[in-house]
Amino acid sequence: MEKIVEQGLLYDFYGELLTEHQRRIYEDVVFNDMSLSEIAEEQGISRQGVHDLIKRCDRTLLGYESRLHLLEKFSRVKETVEQIEKISSEENVKLLARQILEEM
Amino acid sequence: MEKIVEQGLLYDFYGELLTEHQRRIYEDVVFNDMSLSEIAEEQGISRQGVHDLIKRCDRTLLGYESRLHLLEKFSRVKETVEQIEKISSEENVKLLARQILEEM
Repeated sequence: MEKIVEQGLLYDFYGELLTEHQRRIYEDVVFNDMSLSEIAEEQGISRQGVHDLIKRCDRTLLGYESRLHLLEKFSRVKETVEQIEKISSEENVKLLARQILEEM
Repeated sequence: MEKIVEQGLLYDFYGELLTEHQRRIYEDVVFNDMSLSEIAEEQGISRQGVHDLIKRCDRTLLGYESRLHLLEKFSRVKETVEQIEKISSEENVKLLARQILEEM
């Protein structure tokens, strides 16, 4: 998986477990496509500081995944939902199956 | 919800985020139905120590739920799965829907 995609997914599942400060900077890198220098200037910290913070967040988020496996579970459920969509001939059932992915 | 049931559910979702020591004692209370005195003796700590540890674990687990909402999400998905089971006339689809709850 491309790194930025994986970071985005990990953040979707575990971002709430980071501090507010970490979240703001992680979002700037992963979702707002800002450079480390831009963020450093905006936050009044060094470029290296931003770099270290991102590394630390990556480790934290991966640590949670290694214990809770939410991405892994979501990916399995997604496959099952897609199977239901594929084999069912009932439109209302397909909609409900798709809805499950929004509920997770 | 009965307290011991809620504790069991929280533990199912977030138990991996407790320490090994906390997990062992929490399991003894919640799943093995041991008394605080029995656990205190077994672990060589005071009854009050066991009591405090359980309280702390409860707070930790509830803290994770307040941020990640996994019980809440599971409960929504469960309702949707039950709707699929109710309205679908396709047996293989019902089985796949039920399977989703195991995958979470």
